[in-house]
Amino acid sequence: MNPNIPETNQKRVVIVGAGFGGLVFAQKLAKQNFQIVLIDKNNYHQFQPLFYQVAMAGLEPSSISFPLRKIFQHMPNVHIRITKVNAVDTDKQSITTELGEISYDYLVLGLGTDTNFFGMQNMMDKAIPMKSVSEAIFLRNRVLQNLEDALTTQDPLEREGLMNMVVVGGGPTGVEVSGTLAEMKKIILPKDYPELDFNLMKIYLFESSPEVLEVMSDEASAKGKEYLEKLGVIVKNGVRVVDFDGEYAYTSTDEKIRTNNVVWAAGVKANAITGFSSEIFGRGGRIKVNEFNQVEGFQNIFALGDLALMTADAEFPNGHPQMAQPAIQQGKLLAQNFTKIINNQSPKSFKYKDLGSMATIGRNLAVVDLPFWKFQGTFAWYVWMFVHLMSILGVKNKILIFINWLWNYITYDQSLRLIIKPKFKE
Amino acid sequence: MNPNIPETNQKRVVIVGAGFGGLVFAQKLAKQNFQIVLIDKNNYHQFQPLFYQVAMAGLEPSSISFPLRKIFQHMPNVHIRITKVNAVDTDKQSITTELGEISYDYLVLGLGTDTNFFGMQNMMDKAIPMKSVSEAIFLRNRVLQNLEDALTTQDPLEREGLMNMVVVGGGPTGVEVSGTLAEMKKIILPKDYPELDFNLMKIYLFESSPEVLEVMSDEASAKGKEYLEKLGVIVKNGVRVVDFDGEYAYTSTDEKIRTNNVVWAAGVKANAITGFSSEIFGRGGRIKVNEFNQVEGFQNIFALGDLALMTADAEFPNGHPQMAQPAIQQGKLLAQNFTKIINNQSPKSFKYKDLGSMATIGRNLAVVDLPFWKFQGTFAWYVWMFVHLMSILGVKNKILIFINWLWNYITYDQSLRLIIKPKFKE
Repeated sequence: MNPNIPETNQKRVVIVGAGFGGLVFAQKLAKQNFQIVLIDKNNYHQFQPLFYQVAMAGLEPSSISFPLRKIFQHMPNVHIRITKVNAVDTDKQSITTELGEISYDYLVLGLGTDTNFFGMQNMMDKAIPMKSVSEAIFLRNRVLQNLEDALTTQDPLEREGLMNMVVVGGGPTGVEVSGTLAEMKKIILPKDYPELDFNLMKIYLFESSPEVLEVMSDEASAKGKEYLEKLGVIVKNGVRVVDFDGEYAYTSTDEKIRTNNVVWAAGVKANAITGFSSEIFGRGGRIKVNEFNQVEGFQNIFALGDLALMTADAEFPNGHPQMAQPAIQQGKLLAQNFTKIINNQSPKSFKYKDLGSMATIGRNLAVVDLPFWKFQGTFAWYVWMFVHLMSILGVKNKILIFINWLWNYITYDQSLRLIIKPKFKE
Repeated sequence: MNPNIPETNQKRVVIVGAGFGGLVFAQKLAKQNFQIVLIDKNNYHQFQPLFYQVAMAGLEPSSISFPLRKIFQHMPNVHIRITKVNAVDTDKQSITTELGEISYDYLVLGLGTDTNFFGMQNMMDKAIPMKSVSEAIFLRNRVLQNLEDALTTQDPLEREGLMNMVVVGGGPTGVEVSGTLAEMKKIILPKDYPELDFNLMKIYLFESSPEVLEVMSDEASAKGKEYLEKLGVIVKNGVRVVDFDGEYAYTSTDEKIRTNNVVWAAGVKANAITGFSSEIFGRGGRIKVNEFNQVEGFQNIFALGDLALMTADAEFPNGHPQMAQPAIQQGKLLAQNFTKIINNQSPKSFKYKDLGSMATIGRNLAVVDLPFWKFQGTFAWYVWMFVHLMSILGVKNKILIFINWLWNYITYDQSLRLIIKPKFKE
């Protein structure tokens, strides 16, 4: 194997990661006179905000994914390579990938984050994270298979463990997963499994801080909790889940909950890359960058989005929130600034424009914080759907998601409840 | 684990397999006063005629699958168990499953068929079959990953192997797969992989008999071959693929073709079940039944569809063709006859009503044999689409498939080109 990137007269910009930041940067820069090498583990861009709907059988993975090669079909200066990046050699100006070495003139890192288990080995081994399409499908299969197993076990305690769900982390993902599970428990599952008693199924949401949706406004946090409890989620604030052995989850308040399922949405850490000195890494493993997304100490290396820790933006001295918007805005600005930066002309400093944040809890239940307006309930839910529909890549994805949502809304029934077992060879 | 089927006053009918025959039988019989136990390996019914579109990135697996529990939501006398059946004990009137033993008053077998490799171990190990949704996804991932690998190999012979495709078996599946591959090669892949030379990619279709689509009319066979060749498929009739080592396919005419990909659609055999004496098995491992689908020598055991070898139907002395229609018709009739049969009243004999057969080769290219009318080309293609759309279960699936087809037709672009790597734990 060899990356086989042709040598041209163009300067080569290597982009690692086709998440929100890397993708928008690549799309914009592709119109300029550079050779672009875009590297990702997957051959598709994943729309992370809707992973939870894949996990909860509401959407197909393909509806929230977009093939990279399709996006760049008519841009011959873009070379896509599907591989993992292991290290960067800043002296040689090259990166090491599983396909071999790739040299760069400019390097843009958009590796994003992965689940942070805070070093808890039992969690790594037994809990279910939700940071990729594959993990979302894994969760979907697990929940459905558990209910099949619950039907056929003789042991009531075992049945309790199979049916109970513990969600750790009260951010948007944790709230959305536990809310959707509660709705499934109420509406769909009793119809599918009339032989099971769903009063036995308990859905817990643990959040160590005093409120759920802590990053949002107090109104959103309060309403979020109210909605969750209305749906029957047992919300535990100020409590941490400290251990999980696959049968019991143990809490910081010495509770012991019988469950086979711990969904871990309690934190993220930047994806690691070796080859830098340790000083450039800050909180959460993020890479320190200046106001132009230049990595500290380098003229020709940049970091974007979740990976980048930019403290120069006065309103965000601890770095920007790790969500789609900062990444997209940084990617766009960097593409505009790029020629200026590399020619030592004066580029524009990054300033994050907060477009707001939102989370959905269930049917007609969402919370929305806009910069000058905070609202909750049915209208918030419509806004949430509209914004996500508009953000997703591709007209066909928009149509398919819209039909799925409309269908689920009218019929009260998500219909993607398939346990698809993967097949392997060699 | 224990099947946990409640004991009731109703007679228990155990149905093994939720394919076309088993499913329609279960649906119809569920309205009568029986306890029904429906067993399948998967928690969904698979619409086999469209597997090839999943394999060729045209449709999502969920569009051609339907969750069994949803179908039987309002029928409390139906108990669904997702498990494998290993054996039947006709004396004890019970079957052995991975969940334990299940006794029956009446047993209906609809296990269908699996790929027949005719004992060729190399094929079993290296070739790609296409008899389930999982296998179809495996093929999709394989084709796409191969093209990624072709980009990064240094060895021209290796690249040839990754790009070349050999399809074995000129029945509808083989014809549809090779035709679709040829269209992808022509329309989509060069746009996705501008760095690869698709003149190097060869698509072979091998069929040992003198014509493709042998089960259809001579017109259909001739036009089918013409269409395939028009699309650039290298059709080899009267030649068998006799071996495959993962790098070369070897033919009965001593040809040696460099390819990493052999799609095996050359034959099927009935899924095996132990516990019967060998006399009841006929050609292709099918179980001999009388004109009421009763298994030879038993009053209370039935076999349906692909699994059943019914020689009593005068027009089909070698048994019915192994496709959806005979299975559906047998399932329906058996449900009507059931009470009569078990009460020794006179049931109606099965008579297969041939509704015709069809195959699609590519855009605007299909062949249709109706009982009194045979036609090919664009109109045949529309008929093919209409019939398949009407046959698929569920309104939502119909809508989604229609949109996908319309989209692909207008844009010349199937967009489900994702390599989704499964995730595992424990």
